[in-house]
Amino acid sequence: MTKAAISLAGVFPPIPTPFDERGEVHYATLADNLARWNEYGLAGYVVLGSNGEAVYLTDEEKVRILETCRRAIPADKLLIAGTGAQSTRATIDLTRRAAEAGADAALVVTPHYYIGKMTSEALVRHYHALADASPIPVMIYNVPGFTGVDMAVDALARAAEHPNLVGMKDTAGNITKLADTVRAAGPGFQVLAGSAGFFLTGLVVGAVGGVLALANIAPQRALDIYYLFRAGNLEEAAELQRRMIPVNTAVTAGLGIAGLKAALDMLGYYGGPVRPPLLDLTGAQRETLRAILVEGGAL
Amino acid sequence: MTKAAISLAGVFPPIPTPFDERGEVHYATLADNLARWNEYGLAGYVVLGSNGEAVYLTDEEKVRILETCRRAIPADKLLIAGTGAQSTRATIDLTRRAAEAGADAALVVTPHYYIGKMTSEALVRHYHALADASPIPVMIYNVPGFTGVDMAVDALARAAEHPNLVGMKDTAGNITKLADTVRAAGPGFQVLAGSAGFFLTGLVVGAVGGVLALANIAPQRALDIYYLFRAGNLEEAAELQRRMIPVNTAVTAGLGIAGLKAALDMLGYYGGPVRPPLLDLTGAQRETLRAILVEGGAL
Amino acid sequence: MTKAAISLAGVFPPIPTPFDERGEVHYATLADNLARWNEYGLAGYVVLGSNGEAVYLTDEEKVRILETCRRAIPADKLLIAGTGAQSTRATIDLTRRAAEAGADAALVVTPHYYIGKMTSEALVRHYHALADASPIPVMIYNVPGFTGVDMAVDALARAAEHPNLVGMKDTAGNITKLADTVRAAGPGFQVLAGSAGFFLTGLVVGAVGGVLALANIAPQRALDIYYLFRAGNLEEAAELQRRMIPVNTAVTAGLGIAGLKAALDMLGYYGGPVRPPLLDLTGAQRETLRAILVEGGAL
Amino acid sequence: MTKAAISLAGVFPPIPTPFDERGEVHYATLADNLARWNEYGLAGYVVLGSNGEAVYLTDEEKVRILETCRRAIPADKLLIAGTGAQSTRATIDLTRRAAEAGADAALVVTPHYYIGKMTSEALVRHYHALADASPIPVMIYNVPGFTGVDMAVDALARAAEHPNLVGMKDTAGNITKLADTVRAAGPGFQVLAGSAGFFLTGLVVGAVGGVLALANIAPQRALDIYYLFRAGNLEEAAELQRRMIPVNTAVTAGLGIAGLKAALDMLGYYGGPVRPPLLDLTGAQRETLRAILVEGGAL
Repeated sequence: MTKAAISLAGVFPPIPTPFDERGEVHYATLADNLARWNEYGLAGYVVLGSNGEAVYLTDEEKVRILETCRRAIPADKLLIAGTGAQSTRATIDLTRRAAEAGADAALVVTPHYYIGKMTSEALVRHYHALADASPIPVMIYNVPGFTGVDMAVDALARAAEHPNLVGMKDTAGNITKLADTVRAAGPGFQVLAGSAGFFLTGLVVGAVGGVLALANIAPQRALDIYYLFRAGNLEEAAELQRRMIPVNTAVTAGLGIAGLKAALDMLGYYGGPVRPPLLDLTGAQRETLRAILVEGGAL
Repeated sequence: MTKAAISLAGVFPPIPTPFDERGEVHYATLADNLARWNEYGLAGYVVLGSNGEAVYLTDEEKVRILETCRRAIPADKLLIAGTGAQSTRATIDLTRRAAEAGADAALVVTPHYYIGKMTSEALVRHYHALADASPIPVMIYNVPGFTGVDMAVDALARAAEHPNLVGMKDTAGNITKLADTVRAAGPGFQVLAGSAGFFLTGLVVGAVGGVLALANIAPQRALDIYYLFRAGNLEEAAELQRRMIPVNTAVTAGLGIAGLKAALDMLGYYGGPVRPPLLDLTGAQRETLRAILVEGGAL
Repeated sequence: MTKAAISLAGVFPPIPTPFDERGEVHYATLADNLARWNEYGLAGYVVLGSNGEAVYLTDEEKVRILETCRRAIPADKLLIAGTGAQSTRATIDLTRRAAEAGADAALVVTPHYYIGKMTSEALVRHYHALADASPIPVMIYNVPGFTGVDMAVDALARAAEHPNLVGMKDTAGNITKLADTVRAAGPGFQVLAGSAGFFLTGLVVGAVGGVLALANIAPQRALDIYYLFRAGNLEEAAELQRRMIPVNTAVTAGLGIAGLKAALDMLGYYGGPVRPPLLDLTGAQRETLRAILVEGGAL
Repeated sequence: MTKAAISLAGVFPPIPTPFDERGEVHYATLADNLARWNEYGLAGYVVLGSNGEAVYLTDEEKVRILETCRRAIPADKLLIAGTGAQSTRATIDLTRRAAEAGADAALVVTPHYYIGKMTSEALVRHYHALADASPIPVMIYNVPGFTGVDMAVDALARAAEHPNLVGMKDTAGNITKLADTVRAAGPGFQVLAGSAGFFLTGLVVGAVGGVLALANIAPQRALDIYYLFRAGNLEEAAELQRRMIPVNTAVTAGLGIAGLKAALDMLGYYGGPVRPPLLDLTGAQRETLRAILVEGGAL
């Protein structure tokens, strides 16, 4: 069967969810941030992903966030909504609501709580049931660093047979596996690199783009890697890729979402606080972050 | 400060949530199951825990399940409600609703999605904020097999300083750490063994009881281990402990909740199906399970 | 078939190998240390184990160490020699040389370099080939913390069918598995707890003794746990067990062999330096260690 | 300081050690295999690495193997010898003997038995002590899949400051880290991709070549990836890279050294048996392997 017609090529920032000082969603600054990001050549946005603290949001907040984003995002940029829940039924329900709110595609994290039972069979059935029920194209979100689940290549290939399963965000960081997924799933299944640390190498082995936390704070740098690669300027792309790794690490594994938000604050976006149990940066962490941003040319 | 006065001594089954063939919660059979379990000398029940497929339930279902249980459980047995969510605010909210529904205590799984940031500092603040806000005593639920988070002994001891933090269920299976937690947290902080596999050894080093999946399908065997230990009959207790391990493994790590429910079906309780993405047992798995139950004297 | 007649009951320290300041084996102080330990009711010694830095010794040093120990150890105490190598042929060779040097039994770590291929089948064949060839009884040494290999219960039970395979040292710290091994391997296969942290609980579920780093620095405390258990004085045994955990942790996972040797120095034994790449304690670590030993009553 | 002048650019097979049916080293077929490989444009050979079953060889066998290889390898190809042992002193000793036997460089696996103590400080001191003492250039071999140790980027960069520490083989498979190592260690420190699965992507981010098990059985394919990349033909290189992944996996993580040897047998080289506890392939595994080789165009 042919795939749903949607192109995932390009760079997508997985945007954070702004909260005010009382911890409530700050919808106005969300729109403000998007207005600034819209000035770059980004292909779209991932909303309600890991960087969006989605697991800390109620379903009502999620829907309102999507509605806010839809209004703030031009029609020629994709709004990809994180809609994964632990159960198949809750995932279907939330995906339908995201579609109603205007999402162009759903990015669905592997269920993981009963990790020992999240076999390839269970995961393939989950994604097929969802792809059957979803009014919008579905993407798999494979992120073992958060979930402990690393969906196998043959399971990904089986899942990819469904026409409404259009791609995946692979954040595992195993480039061999990413390349093998491109091979096994075949054309039509669009793989996105899930971290700026392996964006260039992902593109080299067949990824069509990336969902990159780095693109929140240094959108042009992320786009430069993409366009340098597309132009065949590999050496310059590699140089930039290497230079961005410490910056990217700081706002992902290193200092986490609190680091990403602090960096946004430093750059004139609205970052704001994280929701507990996450902790905001200490003063010392903030200084470390600032030094890394300066060193990497992001500030 | 003195602890809230609640005794967690004894055996608690973490009960599964019955679903009908369409996947809806089957409240009537839930009450029926409890009526049968009530005939044993169990100290109470854990409802909405991992075995209750809590991550697959809506908040509305959770409240109605608690209300159903409260009506079905005599006042002299504890109703312990699983109320953990990823965010502190959602956990507080659900814990308050559980208290309103009649829960005697809350069992709160460590938040875990942003595992790298769930530091001791973050976890202690989370539990203290919850213990401050909760109208009922709070227990920590440490289950690295599902969450990847294994709360450190000194963090547990710090959390335990709060008067409304009365104990924990430790499912890590690290008996050295369990013993060290008893030592470090001191009297008043009541530790429950989180699996029948190390129930007896947990009691030996200071646990006051256990939350045991085994107690769903073989409540008297679980109670026998407890009372043999209390009576000083260690050799007989050890013999029974060893004999129960394969049975317990079958309905936990081995065949999971689907195995636990299938065993209940075989024993005349209502087990029923699991919610997807969990998969029900295959016929072959069912036969394996039956053989293990027979071999262990549970069927 | 009946097992080789050897009793592994009791407490065994896994002794460190003394080096002089140039890093050469210090045979004289080895004998001196043993003379002091011989005054306690220890059942014997494990020589050339993990705590003996066996992986840092040449075969020639190993043989001379065993000869030195044999002269220093009374005939009524066992000399158990670590003889495991990565290949079956090297393990057989070293085990024969250990037997010639007077070892009463061999303690053989699971081979582990090609960890993904160390299947149950490979491990069982390895131990059976060794047990066939060895002139002395063979014990399995399961220590996933160092090797990454955790031999499965059914593989242990299959290995245990060999009459010359008399027991194991289990350092995994999974008390459920230890109990299940006792059950599955049956009487005649003698299980030793591999760390003082779970010594008492190991005895409760059927271990006959322990190989305990703690017994190097606090032999009487280790023996007290054993005899309190044997005398049925479980409460006092548990109290002592809990008290010894921080002390034991300091000289094992906490500060490692350098910590164990520093503690011996503080107690009037010869500890001395470790071989590189291991590092000796810093001054600050030494003070931490001293405080823990004092707190635990070991100094 | 300037680095020792040695170029590690190009493709190196980590050759297996042939054994006869009694398990003895088969020196004649070792030379025969090399004579065939010499016909390809390989930059040299890694001898006594993980694929050489080095942990199963005596020091005497190792020296004789190196001498045999030195005679069989033309002077314009490098002979890189695996010389890592657990202790610093044994590593220095073996490295000196390898130099005497004609090795051009030493590839030294991270020590790992006391994994918790193999801190960056311990590892840097180990490599610096070795680099001081070694008559030939030293390379770090980072292979967490076998050792559990994954040397940190800053430790690698510190080690790389030594003029006699010329490069590393990185088999971790974390392409972000490999790229960051190139950045942090700077020019002069030559990084080799340690597996064909990420050879092309390694080259893209700055590796100068690869040590590839695949190069034993498909040397031309491995060289093609290298030269396609050098020629800027990235698309064709990526296509070949993806196609080789299943073949490479079969002779590495999939079927291991026994698989590699069986493939050599199928291709007319001498493969022969592995040393126990490794197991030779079963008939079924052999058929699986053959199918993968045919599918990948390697047979």
